[in-house]
Amino acid sequence: MTTVNIGQGFVRLDAAMADDASVVNAARVSFAKNAVLPNQMSDADKGLINFLMREKHGTPFEHNSFRFHVKTPVFVAREWFRHRIGSFNEFSARYSEVPNDFFVPDERDVRAQVGKPGSYSFEPLSENVSRSTVEIINAANERAYETYTGLLEMGVAKELARSVLPVSMYTQFYWTVNARALMNFLSLRTHETAQRDIRFYADAVYALVAPVMPVTFESWENNGRVTP
Amino acid sequence: MTTVNIGQGFVRLDAAMADDASVVNAARVSFAKNAVLPNQMSDADKGLINFLMREKHGTPFEHNSFRFHVKTPVFVAREWFRHRIGSFNEFSARYSEVPNDFFVPDERDVRAQVGKPGSYSFEPLSENVSRSTVEIINAANERAYETYTGLLEMGVAKELARSVLPVSMYTQFYWTVNARALMNFLSLRTHETAQRDIRFYADAVYALVAPVMPVTFESWENNGRVTP
Amino acid sequence: MTTVNIGQGFVRLDAAMADDASVVNAARVSFAKNAVLPNQMSDADKGLINFLMREKHGTPFEHNSFRFHVKTPVFVAREWFRHRIGSFNEFSARYSEVPNDFFVPDERDVRAQVGKPGSYSFEPLSENVSRSTVEIINAANERAYETYTGLLEMGVAKELARSVLPVSMYTQFYWTVNARALMNFLSLRTHETAQRDIRFYADAVYALVAPVMPVTFESWENNGRVTP
Amino acid sequence: MTTVNIGQGFVRLDAAMADDASVVNAARVSFAKNAVLPNQMSDADKGLINFLMREKHGTPFEHNSFRFHVKTPVFVAREWFRHRIGSFNEFSARYSEVPNDFFVPDERDVRAQVGKPGSYSFEPLSENVSRSTVEIINAANERAYETYTGLLEMGVAKELARSVLPVSMYTQFYWTVNARALMNFLSLRTHETAQRDIRFYADAVYALVAPVMPVTFESWENNGRVTP
Repeated sequence: MTTVNIGQGFVRLDAAMADDASVVNAARVSFAKNAVLPNQMSDADKGLINFLMREKHGTPFEHNSFRFHVKTPVFVAREWFRHRIGSFNEFSARYSEVPNDFFVPDERDVRAQVGKPGSYSFEPLSENVSRSTVEIINAANERAYETYTGLLEMGVAKELARSVLPVSMYTQFYWTVNARALMNFLSLRTHETAQRDIRFYADAVYALVAPVMPVTFESWENNGRVTP
Repeated sequence: MTTVNIGQGFVRLDAAMADDASVVNAARVSFAKNAVLPNQMSDADKGLINFLMREKHGTPFEHNSFRFHVKTPVFVAREWFRHRIGSFNEFSARYSEVPNDFFVPDERDVRAQVGKPGSYSFEPLSENVSRSTVEIINAANERAYETYTGLLEMGVAKELARSVLPVSMYTQFYWTVNARALMNFLSLRTHETAQRDIRFYADAVYALVAPVMPVTFESWENNGRVTP
Repeated sequence: MTTVNIGQGFVRLDAAMADDASVVNAARVSFAKNAVLPNQMSDADKGLINFLMREKHGTPFEHNSFRFHVKTPVFVAREWFRHRIGSFNEFSARYSEVPNDFFVPDERDVRAQVGKPGSYSFEPLSENVSRSTVEIINAANERAYETYTGLLEMGVAKELARSVLPVSMYTQFYWTVNARALMNFLSLRTHETAQRDIRFYADAVYALVAPVMPVTFESWENNGRVTP
Repeated sequence: MTTVNIGQGFVRLDAAMADDASVVNAARVSFAKNAVLPNQMSDADKGLINFLMREKHGTPFEHNSFRFHVKTPVFVAREWFRHRIGSFNEFSARYSEVPNDFFVPDERDVRAQVGKPGSYSFEPLSENVSRSTVEIINAANERAYETYTGLLEMGVAKELARSVLPVSMYTQFYWTVNARALMNFLSLRTHETAQRDIRFYADAVYALVAPVMPVTFESWENNGRVTP
């Protein structure tokens, strides 16, 4: 599996240079010990990974790289791009015409927000309200897109016309990141206080990387999903 | 002057720890030479700054800090946040209700985009089209905001309701950055190929920082606005 | 107090753009709330800092800057420079002749290392061994320096001649860093598993910054010195 | 070829996730264009890489990763570790006994330094002086190592005993870095003003990476070895 679809969006693992042995070898160089091969990991090596995770010796988790191709709504991308340790290249609405492709929530994801910042909880709304919300959002997206294409037809520059498009519009980007920065991303974005929509994406990222570095991510899981 | 207004937005220099002497002293420590005081800069010290700029010895330009408070449309903020060397905290549409505050272009800034990516040029549109564009954008913003407040009234969570809001909505953030990263930002965002809307902001940033490190920014200007 | 001496070395706080209010204001912008002034911090504001620290909302602690001038032995500087979030400029033994200035431990700091990596402990050695160690190190430094100056007199380039100098030689550098990166440095370098020699420096750094952002650093202390 | 030996040191390319197609694809996502496969690069794709390099659109060069295992003298490693965009794990003289392994220059690399900082030149010394320099450095290394092992035998902690060892001692580390940061490293460290000893290493790094991303590095070469 290399692609997970989320609504009309997706996360695709495009390439990886990653295995648990690289963590062990980065740590072993501290002792000038010889490198282990990926298929030669001993129980002691796995224990070393767990020790590094628990004691938050984070640097050995950096000698790897994952490249993703991602399609998300802009409001999700906006949160994603706040993670500064990593590389991004994104679709440009200055250079290209934005396609007619917008996020609309599932009815079951239309919810009310209860409580205060830092401790929000979310509660379901009535079926009527949920269905109506989906229809309203859909119609708003359509109207915005009509306005956009109308402005383009009038000759207005793409970079200005796009200003009427909602943050529900889909965008695409490449993201390249190492496992340590990835664990920081996952800690924050798979957390129950994260917005549900980015959580779906973060869960997908996790599903794609966990099998590539199984000892590392099992250890991360067992240590409370805290970034080392 | 600490604030520059741009439409309904602004750039405000909130605080600075910055002077030309810090550049000189960071370079002089390489030779174990004594520090100079800001009011004791000699011609040789100014020449040293120019040498560092020209030869792209960039690190001495990092021992300073500028903190800005900025209000921009989201489509401008999206470009701004791509600059990873620096610190950001932004308004959250998950935590707070978005105010009714949207970017609308000046009529004179409504233009057509001509040419290809990398070498676009922009040409004025007729007065009619320009006026009409402003009206259309204004109306689209209003409709989107009505949809947004309607969804909130139905009980929909802020984080979902905001998905209908256009990228013309204003946001606010704090940005803290050193002069070297700032010169990189200014090189890219005051450039004639940058979107006009972020150029207004980048020009404002430049107007605010240049007097604080006059020798540094004059040297940057004289060396073709290239990041050292 | 702006300078702490450590043997023949020192840490000097050269400049700061830092107060607790900047943390509060960076967090308050999320809610579009007005800024507070440094002398107007309420108990709620202090509680907010504590909340941010406890919940590891780290970015509001980045909108500040500390510039230090430091003199340490090279083996301490080597650990210091591993901290990548921050700016450094250092004395160059390629450009300048290294002065006759070397680290020699206090007799009471001459100790044996017991146990395994990750859980070393250190025990005192006899007075004789300690005194003898100090003499041996002193003599080794002197011999190395004589070799160095001898090579220079023979016409050998500084950058090559310096290769005989021990990592006990003193170096100087400027270091500019924000409070969040500083807390990471302090977590690791004031820790009991850190080398005693860098701990003296980290303790000095802490003594200099704590009064500048008292609420922040008291909160960091109360939350187990964990980086937010 | 994956390893280049330099004296008793080496650079080994341990792993790579890198090809020219990743540069093209990162740029093409701006236009929502489909990805190209590494073996399907057209002339237009190669031209795109050259355009990105020339116009300093640097981010597409970040979606790749190289992992190196390096053995260098400490005075070379000290310069290497100043490059903050990248990941390092190094041999620890706190945890392990330092082996008897020191840098000694080739006779032909013993030179005089002429001129001023920023425009040094280097001239050969007489055969006598060169031979004598090598002998003096060799003897100094041996004496220092004897002092070190003597201190260990007296029971002194490794972390303190190592303070007498010269910066000519060999160390080992893993280094993981992307092509953009690598080009910055190569620009500075293959430059004629860089210390000859790190230039040998930088040249080796270049020899190892150039065949992996041939279009990228040829373009870098043709554009004056300037970091995009």
